[in-house]
Amino acid sequence: MKNEEDAPLKAYLAERKRRVDEALDRCLPTEDFFPPAIFQAMRYSLFAGGKRLRPILCMAAAEAVGGEADPVLPAACALEMIHTYSLIHDDLPAMDDDDFRRGKPTCHKVFCENIAILAGDALLTEAFHLLAGRELAERVPEKAVVAAVRLVAEAAGFSGMVGGQVVDVLSEGKPADADTLQYIHSRKTGAMIVASVKLGAVLAGAGEEQLAALASYGGRAGLAFQIADDILNVEGDRELLGKDTGSDACRRKMTYPGLLGLDAARDKARELVDSAVEDLAGFDERADPLRKIAQYILDRKS
Amino acid sequence: MKNEEDAPLKAYLAERKRRVDEALDRCLPTEDFFPPAIFQAMRYSLFAGGKRLRPILCMAAAEAVGGEADPVLPAACALEMIHTYSLIHDDLPAMDDDDFRRGKPTCHKVFCENIAILAGDALLTEAFHLLAGRELAERVPEKAVVAAVRLVAEAAGFSGMVGGQVVDVLSEGKPADADTLQYIHSRKTGAMIVASVKLGAVLAGAGEEQLAALASYGGRAGLAFQIADDILNVEGDRELLGKDTGSDACRRKMTYPGLLGLDAARDKARELVDSAVEDLAGFDERADPLRKIAQYILDRKS
Repeated sequence: MKNEEDAPLKAYLAERKRRVDEALDRCLPTEDFFPPAIFQAMRYSLFAGGKRLRPILCMAAAEAVGGEADPVLPAACALEMIHTYSLIHDDLPAMDDDDFRRGKPTCHKVFCENIAILAGDALLTEAFHLLAGRELAERVPEKAVVAAVRLVAEAAGFSGMVGGQVVDVLSEGKPADADTLQYIHSRKTGAMIVASVKLGAVLAGAGEEQLAALASYGGRAGLAFQIADDILNVEGDRELLGKDTGSDACRRKMTYPGLLGLDAARDKARELVDSAVEDLAGFDERADPLRKIAQYILDRKS
Repeated sequence: MKNEEDAPLKAYLAERKRRVDEALDRCLPTEDFFPPAIFQAMRYSLFAGGKRLRPILCMAAAEAVGGEADPVLPAACALEMIHTYSLIHDDLPAMDDDDFRRGKPTCHKVFCENIAILAGDALLTEAFHLLAGRELAERVPEKAVVAAVRLVAEAAGFSGMVGGQVVDVLSEGKPADADTLQYIHSRKTGAMIVASVKLGAVLAGAGEEQLAALASYGGRAGLAFQIADDILNVEGDRELLGKDTGSDACRRKMTYPGLLGLDAARDKARELVDSAVEDLAGFDERADPLRKIAQYILDRKS
């Protein structure tokens, strides 16, 4: 992406992130609530510098099918809570045992391990509380709310994100193979990115054809996002990433650069982004943010 | 409870448990699904001998307000999944560090700690998938499904079960006080028992007055259940309980017998059960199972 094209997208992403951050802040009680430890831990990880990609995709998908961003904001926040819970649990000593994330100590390093587990549990639960909450139910039909809970739970559960994480932790140290890597990425990261675009679209009343196109876009953009993540882990800037580069190789994690080599991994990510943009051929200019976000996934530096 | 009154309730509980077990079995994929570890762990803990109290309360509440038990069965299963997830996470080394539960090694002792964390996460997520699933949505109005997700998420989250567990882990080793103990029990155990009866009633179309009476019943019966649990921990039969008695005292956990003494704790449980039964004064004989379950809570031996 050329620099002169970068500015509008950057402003768009910053403005959307601000709206998501404000909504997340409103969702959670303040630290004078009892017991304080759980709110401090939930807030600490929720406001530890996330890009809010999933909420932004959700709002952009609602707009792409002719809806508005604001009514789906509670659902967008639910996605970020689920993403944050998955990071807290992934970082635990029994899992990836990571001390830093986005340049900050991980939740269990700041609080105790027990509070980190419970903060993750609370964020996952609160996500469903938000999805079924009054704010959303007042603005979209109940049928759409039920469909929303169902699709998010399916994407986050054993056949989606959790299933991907299980295979990931069980595959560490084993020789990389393409099928396993595809399985891990499509579920661990992909499932919730697909769910993010589908969620926005379902709540905005999209039809089956639009949903299928957006699901395909999400699958491809999500995989490109993961490959870009793997590439950044090999050659990214430690300062920008907020974590050590090369950590995947140290840990012998399966990655696309490890499997295909850096150049072929870059080519694959590029092809995926191009196909994701093609998935949106039937949409008008209201899908432009989704098109630009796919591009951004590839070009981001952190 | 006299022995001659015991038999019909025992048969009722056994028949209900069988229906819940069959439904839970249908909900979960079999072990030939990939990745097997997660299903093995979910099934292991879900079928480790639970009494299915929460699902049985849910079905009984649906019947007490004039509905049927079968339509709410998926929701009843969701309650058991949430209960099981909470036990798996509570038993983790970073939490209570328990090696045995109901006479069997705990989930993280059989599988690894990482798989146990993920099995808990998957069960919690699957609970919401079931609540918003097609089976329930085909049999109850969508408005009731949304209310169901909302009330279960609220009871299971930071202001309910998770909040209670946070205060519990932070209170270990501190001197017992009545307010803290009340806080812990009303949330850690009580919130989901209240939610169990409310859930069945909401799905069966109960009115506000019935819901309020059932919530009061659930709160009192739930607290009585916890006190009875504490008493069993002091003087119960190790064989029947499947765990060491006296473990609460060893760990300096706050309990009602520790705070009030055994006799006063027993009196308090009895008063609570009597009040819980009084809460049902406005219900006809269809609430008899709820009345008998309150009694059973007090008299159970395991």
